[in-house]
Amino acid sequence: MGLTFVTTNMGKANEVRSLLRALGIEIDVRAVKLTEIQSDSLEEISMRSCEEAYGVLGEPVFVEDAGLFIERLNGFPGPYSSYVYRTIGNAGILKLMAGEENRVAYFKSCIAYKLSGKPVKMFSGVCVGRISHEPRGSGGFGFDPIFMPEEGDGRTFAEMEIEEKNAISHRGKAVRAFAEWLKLTR
Amino acid sequence: MGLTFVTTNMGKANEVRSLLRALGIEIDVRAVKLTEIQSDSLEEISMRSCEEAYGVLGEPVFVEDAGLFIERLNGFPGPYSSYVYRTIGNAGILKLMAGEENRVAYFKSCIAYKLSGKPVKMFSGVCVGRISHEPRGSGGFGFDPIFMPEEGDGRTFAEMEIEEKNAISHRGKAVRAFAEWLKLTR
Repeated sequence: MGLTFVTTNMGKANEVRSLLRALGIEIDVRAVKLTEIQSDSLEEISMRSCEEAYGVLGEPVFVEDAGLFIERLNGFPGPYSSYVYRTIGNAGILKLMAGEENRVAYFKSCIAYKLSGKPVKMFSGVCVGRISHEPRGSGGFGFDPIFMPEEGDGRTFAEMEIEEKNAISHRGKAVRAFAEWLKLTR
Repeated sequence: MGLTFVTTNMGKANEVRSLLRALGIEIDVRAVKLTEIQSDSLEEISMRSCEEAYGVLGEPVFVEDAGLFIERLNGFPGPYSSYVYRTIGNAGILKLMAGEENRVAYFKSCIAYKLSGKPVKMFSGVCVGRISHEPRGSGGFGFDPIFMPEEGDGRTFAEMEIEEKNAISHRGKAVRAFAEWLKLTR
């Protein structure tokens, strides 16, 4: 059975491909631009995008949506992380966090998968950490240079090898939950 | 013919009602929660919301969507102004703008109107101004306390009476364009 991942973000495509390949699952990546709704819930956004992707492609598809939720900023940038990254970027987040002691944040990933004749199935993963005081590293993408995962040694996601990041990241957790379920149901 | 404005924002409902009443047009306000899509285009967001509102209510409806676009922040918060206001608020915008000389910004309003058997009709208005250095005033709503319109005397929208704001605001311009069109076609 083919498994198609729909995304226009190549950093995300590479991570998900590498994660699933390590679990013996190959994917096709299709860069279809989908509608995302405005919602505070990543689950709702990815479920709706997945239904749209399935409607367009007519084959088993999954999508992934992720966001960075900063406690001191009431969850900002959350589901709008991609837009916020494109506009104010890491520099903007660091400016907003200047002088803030509470730097707790988490990344969350939601995967939505749709198979013919079935409702959308959801998987998620969370990675708790802290916002750094300056951007560090050149790996990963998006807010990775300013996020230091709790389960780490103080380096940011962008300072880690992809395998290292994948082992502890929100996306790694969501993808592994998805892969386990796929193996059980195949 | 009844004219229904769909919004859950009561500040917005009051402004639009007062603007249209001054032009001899009465409206019904219905607080239906609509889906908003993620898009950099207010036009696209309001058009899709309007189609949904029409689908739900089955009568002539209009919606309005607005955003604050700050030049130095690449248009941020733009179409996500409501979310950004709820999370980082005026204090967050002022922190992002600390030390910035270029404080140019504009508010934009888009109205989408749907009448039975017709495509959605769009109207828009823009108000150019600057971001203040501190919040001032208690009128209006949202980012009004930090926006000083160009066509003014240095006061923020929140320091003006509603009639004063309406005379120069983005929303005032969009509503007047809408009202003129309504009068021509009725």
